[in-house]
Amino acid sequence: MRIVSLAGGIGGARFLRGLLAASPDAEITVIGNTGDDITLFGLRVCPDLDTVMYTLGGGIDEEQGWGRSDETHVVKEELAAYGMEPQWFGLGDRDFATHIVRTRMLDAGYPLSQVTEALCDRWKPGVRLIPMSDDRTETHVVINDEQGRRAVHFQEWWVRLRAAVPAEQILLVGADEARPAPGVLQAIDEADVVILPPSNPVVSIGTILQIKGIREALERKTVVGVSPIVGGAPVRGMADACLTAIGVDTTAQAVLELYGSPLVDGWLVAEQDAGVGLDGVVVEARPLIMHDAGAAAGIARAAVDLAVRLSERQGRAGEEAR
Amino acid sequence: MRIVSLAGGIGGARFLRGLLAASPDAEITVIGNTGDDITLFGLRVCPDLDTVMYTLGGGIDEEQGWGRSDETHVVKEELAAYGMEPQWFGLGDRDFATHIVRTRMLDAGYPLSQVTEALCDRWKPGVRLIPMSDDRTETHVVINDEQGRRAVHFQEWWVRLRAAVPAEQILLVGADEARPAPGVLQAIDEADVVILPPSNPVVSIGTILQIKGIREALERKTVVGVSPIVGGAPVRGMADACLTAIGVDTTAQAVLELYGSPLVDGWLVAEQDAGVGLDGVVVEARPLIMHDAGAAAGIARAAVDLAVRLSERQGRAGEEAR
Repeated sequence: MRIVSLAGGIGGARFLRGLLAASPDAEITVIGNTGDDITLFGLRVCPDLDTVMYTLGGGIDEEQGWGRSDETHVVKEELAAYGMEPQWFGLGDRDFATHIVRTRMLDAGYPLSQVTEALCDRWKPGVRLIPMSDDRTETHVVINDEQGRRAVHFQEWWVRLRAAVPAEQILLVGADEARPAPGVLQAIDEADVVILPPSNPVVSIGTILQIKGIREALERKTVVGVSPIVGGAPVRGMADACLTAIGVDTTAQAVLELYGSPLVDGWLVAEQDAGVGLDGVVVEARPLIMHDAGAAAGIARAAVDLAVRLSERQGRAGEEAR
Repeated sequence: MRIVSLAGGIGGARFLRGLLAASPDAEITVIGNTGDDITLFGLRVCPDLDTVMYTLGGGIDEEQGWGRSDETHVVKEELAAYGMEPQWFGLGDRDFATHIVRTRMLDAGYPLSQVTEALCDRWKPGVRLIPMSDDRTETHVVINDEQGRRAVHFQEWWVRLRAAVPAEQILLVGADEARPAPGVLQAIDEADVVILPPSNPVVSIGTILQIKGIREALERKTVVGVSPIVGGAPVRGMADACLTAIGVDTTAQAVLELYGSPLVDGWLVAEQDAGVGLDGVVVEARPLIMHDAGAAAGIARAAVDLAVRLSERQGRAGEEAR
């Protein structure tokens, strides 16, 4: 079976680990969000790609959910001793090496998709990880605080300001020109089912959906999403701040409507959100909290099972229509 | 008193520490060798400038003579885990931060002299450290081994091959176009005396002397050199391999002749080399082994004393000639 999954950072990566456990024989392609990529100290940092790669490759800091295990922070301290900004972004020494390799390869002319493949040669994540686009896009957030109304990089809003200053607008700079990376559309076309993990619906999944052609390709497939909202709150992270910025309620219902039909064919919600529904979408209620790897595998299995059932049903419907 | 000193790496830096101790009230300008600079992993590394800066700024690994004290090597290990080459150059984590800052500033358009000044803002070496040139020059070495005749970067010959393969030629690539960095010629013109420390006469001092205008400016000043060769062997390092490459004997006499007159006015040799001499040069014999900081200060004091005496004598001679 060929599965495509979109993915953001921590939540997506943990879900993918469950997906690998639930579908050990599947050929899994992950389309990773690059909207929160940032250049720091001249080095290109791709937080979501790295979180997926480290998590699936066994190099993640399990407690933190991002960055490397057994990490040290000598380089960061030294950069601060030189007065280099920014000092609010926590890069560890092991992580620095990844960004040095990536930047070296990008400067040598390799596209991000090939760089990511080269980095994964080391990590062997067990999935094919493709950035959503080789073109540079960056999520910026319009805020209005004591310094006035201005756009800041998503990471500055998310990490430095901890999304505490309300976002007036969230923009993917470069979205108009960005094309899907090589292999993205083909992987979707060849997929048996597509899964949307409980990643941030605005700045992770929503960002990927903005890349020309990706939404349209997904609409032709059987897509099952896992709600990132349980009982009116994000499973993890600060998705509520992002949803509020685009005028969407922090509910499993509102996120389903945001994705909409025909994009989504199936939607997994938590048991307390069992009333959620949308025309054309099959909604099922399941325990959705990823306490541990086993729970993540259970959720992934439920998503794949639903997708396979929907796909078979659509296949039969297609045959009957002939 | 205004002193200008040229400098290479370890030997030069230790001598300069002695010079600072011997002449605490002097205004010292150091013209640093950049011929052994190298770009590694996309980062610009200036080994000699950094050795001077770390040594005088209290950040040096005292035992090794180069690199940072309390150093760790996490980034290097991680780069090796990615298969990144070269793996023969030992960059520590603290040191990496220096190269990240330097590269960031160079990429932003600052010339190396301003970058060096910014780095020294942190280290406060007690001297004004200026690279010999803002223009990129790199020493390459022509060798002939089982892989055939070819030119390698000086660092590859020095560090990876440990200068064990004979050098057929030593070339400063970019020398023809390179101009002295801002402040270099002015510092020489305004100097009361100039000191050549016991740095490598070929790839450190010899490199600086190749930058257009520097030798000519020095010839107008009172210059005292400290022989890097004692009893037919380098005080430290592998200067013999470099001297052999350019057809010069490894003796205090041959190095004096290499520098020549009118460049050098005074020459300090070790007691066993007391017979050395050259027309127009005052040679004095002194203990020249830098066992410790005290010995380095003693040698520096002897060099400055000789230079001051020669300068006064030349001043009188100049007045008498009027």
